[in-house]
Formats: sequence, structure tokens, C-alpha cells
Amino acid sequence: MPTTEIKTVAVIGTGVIGASWTALLLARGLRVLVTDPAPDAEKNLGAYLKAQWLTLTEMGLSEGASLSNYNFVDSLDDHFDVIDFIQENGPERVEFKRTLFAYLDEKARPDVIIASSSSGIPSSQYASACRNHPERVLVGHPFNPPHLIPLVEVVPHGATDRESVVPRVMEFYKSLGKKPVLIQQETPGFVVNRLQAAVLMEAYSLVRRGVISAADLDTTMTASLGLRWALNGPFVLNAMAGGGSFLHFLEHLGPAAKSWHDDMQKHAFEMTPKAIEELNRSVETTIPTTDLNALQQERDRVLLRLMDLKEKSTLLK
Amino acid sequence: MPTTEIKTVAVIGTGVIGASWTALLLARGLRVLVTDPAPDAEKNLGAYLKAQWLTLTEMGLSEGASLSNYNFVDSLDDHFDVIDFIQENGPERVEFKRTLFAYLDEKARPDVIIASSSSGIPSSQYASACRNHPERVLVGHPFNPPHLIPLVEVVPHGATDRESVVPRVMEFYKSLGKKPVLIQQETPGFVVNRLQAAVLMEAYSLVRRGVISAADLDTTMTASLGLRWALNGPFVLNAMAGGGSFLHFLEHLGPAAKSWHDDMQKHAFEMTPKAIEELNRSVETTIPTTDLNALQQERDRVLLRLMDLKEKSTLLK
Repeated sequence: MPTTEIKTVAVIGTGVIGASWTALLLARGLRVLVTDPAPDAEKNLGAYLKAQWLTLTEMGLSEGASLSNYNFVDSLDDHFDVIDFIQENGPERVEFKRTLFAYLDEKARPDVIIASSSSGIPSSQYASACRNHPERVLVGHPFNPPHLIPLVEVVPHGATDRESVVPRVMEFYKSLGKKPVLIQQETPGFVVNRLQAAVLMEAYSLVRRGVISAADLDTTMTASLGLRWALNGPFVLNAMAGGGSFLHFLEHLGPAAKSWHDDMQKHAFEMTPKAIEELNRSVETTIPTTDLNALQQERDRVLLRLMDLKEKSTLLK
Repeated sequence: MPTTEIKTVAVIGTGVIGASWTALLLARGLRVLVTDPAPDAEKNLGAYLKAQWLTLTEMGLSEGASLSNYNFVDSLDDHFDVIDFIQENGPERVEFKRTLFAYLDEKARPDVIIASSSSGIPSSQYASACRNHPERVLVGHPFNPPHLIPLVEVVPHGATDRESVVPRVMEFYKSLGKKPVLIQQETPGFVVNRLQAAVLMEAYSLVRRGVISAADLDTTMTASLGLRWALNGPFVLNAMAGGGSFLHFLEHLGPAAKSWHDDMQKHAFEMTPKAIEELNRSVETTIPTTDLNALQQERDRVLLRLMDLKEKSTLLK
């Protein structure tokens, strides 16, 4: 079915990711069927949605948006005739997902896309349990929290339908106001978590080696690289720095980057209990652990305004 | 001398970094003596300052700020009695810097700090040419363009005076509105360029291997990681994600980061001519190289507003 005809979405699992997807879908005017076997899941979801609705309202509600346009159901069994899209957010265990996806594939209409929010388990590992239409299974990995951060990594497995399913998923997420990117091959950590881990592992090494304090390392990010990366990606920045030519940049500055990268490998952080303990001791001396909730709320407030600045710009993306 | 009594700064070299330092110093109400032997250097500096003054005015001028409070001089010889601080931005050649620093150390008053903007050559390599006061030599490496981006990496060499010189430099840069961080040991690439190279090298590898397009990789940064890193550094974010405990985060998610890091090493981008050519071909198909000037101007405009949002926040740094 065309994505414009997606009216009802099933959200499976209402941990922080599933709850956030639910909030976003409601704000975009969709109807949501939610299910989660955890005790208090329904109550917790209700409280979460209520708490987030003001933020979503500030971001702008779509026609038909309603905080109450969802049903929490014990089972999806009786609802597959109205379900147009499935977003799965269950536990990160392969066997669990295999059983769940086999069931969903058995029950859902053939035109319904089944997307997993999984960050860690590529869909090839559970699409193979689907006997009917494994080609409609793939990963749609959001970045926490999904109703604020635009990115979704769309990761098909080897047999996902690239002609129809992938474009429809991209279009659907775009219609929600997300920025989906296509990961062409299943790669450990996909892309975002790899880029993040590249920074973290070097940050851990530098602080443990006493090159810089954890607080100062945070400042290097928020007072330089982060400011630029919020607005432009690495490749556009390289092209800018190369006077309009990425090749010029790479030929002139690539060897230095390579030499620093080599040095980083020599000093790579070992994830041993001793190293973890030492690093933690350094981090604890400069990174505050109190009032992180207040900081996070303030961050989300400024984040919304930052995204609004970007949205109003015609050139930035 | 106390940094509050720094009235006149010598800026040596007026390439993009030196010119930008000059603009910032003038906007902060300081007097600047500028020198650069390149033909047209004086004319180019005048044009640059004029072009940037509006931005600096928007950012807020300090008392005594004046676009004309500088002198372009052929030589500093006759001016050392009034020079209170020296910011060097000469060519990145060791021999050149050794000769220059030996001269500056010979001539400058003993209480004058001599800072190099060098990103690549640690000050130990030219402080050793200073016969009088090598302990007042160090690196103050800004991030381009210095009058906009707050970070300065302060990198002492082994014999830089940690008791007096380092704190005075930190205080002076802070008085200019910068955010200086202290790099405790001379490390190839210092810190910012290492973190940047960690991301770039993995980005190059992913695009060359066909995992993701260059344009989509840029989006992963601007629509997720960059948004967060503009506002919070990696360590605070880890602590938030660990429910207030960095240790909790590291113990639970560290092993995954390590495994992704291991996989990155396996596929590390080789900086060979063939790899560069192939990568460039991929980048060229999705990254626009036209209108980068317009993009950069728009970026700077939004960047100023982003920094203003952060400045008005009491919790973000």
C-alpha cells in the first residue's frame, strides 16, 4: 500500500524507544495500537505520553493528532486487518525476535512492512524465521529519543525488497518528519553507533592516559566539533575546507589524519576491568553526576530551538 | 604581568588564523600589532577585518573595541616595549618556527607569553631554540575560524611553567570569550584533531566500502550525533545514558563499543592513491561542491544563534 494510506501503526514494546515512537506517531495524526506484556506498561505509557505531549505540541502537531488516539491491547491477534505498519521495539534477544517476527509475518497482511528498532541485531537474523514475506522485514533504528532526534537508520537485510519496501519505509519515516538514511549493508553497530564509538574509544584513551580531563574533553566537543557537526556533516565540511574540493582536502590533510589514526590505534583503550575502573575514577573527579535530569531537560529545550533554527534555514539540512 | 593588564597583542602571520585572531582581539578592545611579510598581506587583512566586523558586532563588542585599533608593521623590532602577549601564526615549518621563536624570546619582555597557533608542531620543538625563557612558550591552538568557534587547545611543552604561564594563558583566552582546555601532554594532533580524525577515518571507510553514501553519512551526523554533541560532551552524555552513572554505562555498553571499534580497525581506511580516488568518486556523486560559500555563510549565521542559545542557558556549557 502507498505510505500515504498508512493510518494505523502497531507499536510492539513500550520501553523508552517504543513509547517515544508512540508519542511521535500520535503527534503526526496516526492511530496506534500498542502492546507490551510488562506489568504497569499501560500505565507507564500513559504517563510518558502525557509528559511528552507539550514538547510535541511545541514541535507542531499534524492534522488529527490526538494524545488519546491509541489502544493498549493484550494481543494484536484481533487487529491485523487494520494494522498498516509495524514498529517492533522488543527485547534485544535473537530467539525472542525470531519467534515474534515469525508470528507477525504469519498474521500481518502481505503489504505491511515490519520494521525493528533494534540497534544491535540485524534483521537477517530474524527475517529468516519469516516463512511468508521476509522481504518486508528490515531495521528502522531511531536515535534516542525518537520523537526529538530526526535520524532513523534504515537497514535492509540481504533479501529485503529494495524496489518497493525500502523506498516506502524511507517515505513513511519522512512523512513523520524524520530524516531516514539508508544503510546499504548490515554492519556491526550500523553507522551512527560506529561513529560514536570511534569518538568514545579515543576519548576514553585520552582521559585514561591523562592527556586531558574528562570535563575538558567534553568542552573540546561542545565548543568546536559538535557546533560544526550539528550543522554540517564531515564530507561537506571537508569539501569546504578544501576550497570546494573534497579531493584537495583529502590529498593534503588525509595523511595527517591517517598518522593520528595510527597513533590512536597504538594507544587504543582496552576495555578491561582495571582500565574501566581507572577511567571511571578520572571521570568522576570532573563530571557532575547530580542534576543530570535538569541538564537533560534544559538540553532538550535548547535542542528543540536548534532544530527549529535548522528547519527555517533553506540551505542547512 | 596579570592578564588584565594585557593591552597590546602582537599577531605574527595574517593567514586565515592570524587574521581571525586579529579580528577577535580588536573586538575585545585590545590593541594589535600585526606583521606578515607576504605581498598584499596588509591589504588582505584590512578587507578581512572589514568583512567580519558586522559578525563581531552582532556577537557583542567590548569596551574600547575598534576596527582600526591596529598597526601593520614591517618588523616588531621597535615595538617590544609595548607588546604584552604574542600569538604566532606562521608557516608550519619547524626551522622557521625555531628561528622566529629564538628571536621573539630574545626581544620580548620576560613576562610576555609567546603562544603558537600551530595545530601540528608541538612547542617543545621550538621552545628549545629559546635561550632566555622557554618556560613562557606554549601552543594556543584555535579552531577555525577563531573569532567564531570558542575552543582553544592550550598545550604546554614539558618545561612550560605550569604554575604561572599556563593559568595566565587560560585566563587571558577566557577574557576574550574563548573556552580554553588544557592538554596535559604533547600528543600528535592534540585532542580535537584526533577526535575529528577518528570520525573521518571511519566515515571514509564506510563510504568507500559502500555501506552508506557520503550524503547520508553527513545526515547521520547532522540529524543525530552532532545535535547532541553541540550541547553535551561524550562523558556527560554517557553519564546521562547510564542513569547518572558513567560506570554503569561503561560496564554495560563499553563491550559493544569495543567490538565495533575492533571491527573498524579491521576495515580501516588505507590512505593510498587508489583508495583516495575511489572514495572521491563516491563523494562526488552525492556531495554538492557548488554554492559552498553560500552554505558556509548560512552556517555561520545559524552558528551564531546556536551559540547565543547556549550562552543564555545556565546549565549548558
